[in-house]
Amino acid sequence: MTYCVGTLLQDGIVLLSDTRTNAGVDQVASFRKMTVWRVAGDRIIALLSAGNLSVTQSVIHHLKEGLEIDEEQRVHRMDDVRSMFEAAELVGRAVRRVHAVHGKSLEADPGIGFNVSFLLGGQIAGRPPALFQIYAQGNFIAATRETPYLQIGETKYGKPILDRALTYETDLKHAAKLALVSMDSTLRSNLSVGLPLDLLVIRRDTFTPLIERHIDEHDPYFAELRTGWSAALREAFKRMPDVPW
Amino acid sequence: MTYCVGTLLQDGIVLLSDTRTNAGVDQVASFRKMTVWRVAGDRIIALLSAGNLSVTQSVIHHLKEGLEIDEEQRVHRMDDVRSMFEAAELVGRAVRRVHAVHGKSLEADPGIGFNVSFLLGGQIAGRPPALFQIYAQGNFIAATRETPYLQIGETKYGKPILDRALTYETDLKHAAKLALVSMDSTLRSNLSVGLPLDLLVIRRDTFTPLIERHIDEHDPYFAELRTGWSAALREAFKRMPDVPW
Repeated sequence: MTYCVGTLLQDGIVLLSDTRTNAGVDQVASFRKMTVWRVAGDRIIALLSAGNLSVTQSVIHHLKEGLEIDEEQRVHRMDDVRSMFEAAELVGRAVRRVHAVHGKSLEADPGIGFNVSFLLGGQIAGRPPALFQIYAQGNFIAATRETPYLQIGETKYGKPILDRALTYETDLKHAAKLALVSMDSTLRSNLSVGLPLDLLVIRRDTFTPLIERHIDEHDPYFAELRTGWSAALREAFKRMPDVPW
Repeated sequence: MTYCVGTLLQDGIVLLSDTRTNAGVDQVASFRKMTVWRVAGDRIIALLSAGNLSVTQSVIHHLKEGLEIDEEQRVHRMDDVRSMFEAAELVGRAVRRVHAVHGKSLEADPGIGFNVSFLLGGQIAGRPPALFQIYAQGNFIAATRETPYLQIGETKYGKPILDRALTYETDLKHAAKLALVSMDSTLRSNLSVGLPLDLLVIRRDTFTPLIERHIDEHDPYFAELRTGWSAALREAFKRMPDVPW
């Protein structure tokens, strides 16, 4: 499985993904689940993927190579979409293209299925930052001020802390820390999500990563955060009033 | 949905269930999901249920009325099992009995299915306390010193805090508080789990509840715990070191 989380904030966007992929317990490997398109001063777009690796890799192939999406047979690539909405549509079209080729065979096995989802976050010059979640059917939803985060994969373990602490006004530093704490809860409770992680923080209107960090088991900051957070939770828990006897 | 959690500890057992049942979003109701059998000085056994309400109610009916389980057609009830292991077997047999009647029709609709699971915890005089999880197939697993808690229903939201703070040596007071915090995380992140709650704490070798508490939205302790825990989490989070820029 996978855990990816994205947050859309007044100051920009935070994206975090793990890299664990497994096709059965004895075939576990690491694959980067974050693909970034960037043109300095013009755009930065990141795609985070969950689900069947053969499907997500094919989708990314089409986004890079281009899809013919209109009657004039023009080829559209992630590099030349004009808005994040168009980018989300393009991902949806790529998903449907892959479904047209592989959907039937994958769905024939109920244990496999056409199982895929994406987070797409970024900004294109002249437009506001945006964050989308794209489904296996190619349709999508956008994060909003009221619901500033979206998750894919193993989403439940890491949801309570986001529900408690994240708002649209949270600053980028705190949102990045919060995404890492949410990931930590998931890593602790689910073996199928694993290090290393990819963290990308994009400040609004800069079109360049503020933080782009590959976090592995030797990362001193993440190690400190994990230990500190566990200790802080246990401490906080101890201070809670006891159940009346 | 449902969330139920049980812990098996050196000092006894803690069991907690919610009461929300829904058959579609417009048909939400409260049903107690905890059934208790007790004979002072001899036994206390509690069954917590998740899944299709028609199935769980039928299972409980059989456990109360009795099942003929051997060639001599003797009727066995939860009141006269001789060990918790026998109790778990009896629940498993009741599940299979209900499956024999309703399984085929329920499984014919993939949106319904024969969907049920149980936690069974308690102690019978002369035997140690025990905690089991019983599956829809009637088989079961026991909690152990290494894995002192079991969950059914919407289990993921409330798992991280248990993984961090619970051990077999945790005392009953703290384990009860921990179960409530685990429930609070689930209540906050999942609308299908809801108040009121049923909390049962059984001290080893007493065969009578140490705490038996029905917790609704007016319960002052639970309200204090929820507010306090949220504030403590936010406070703890603020004190964590920031991501290096």
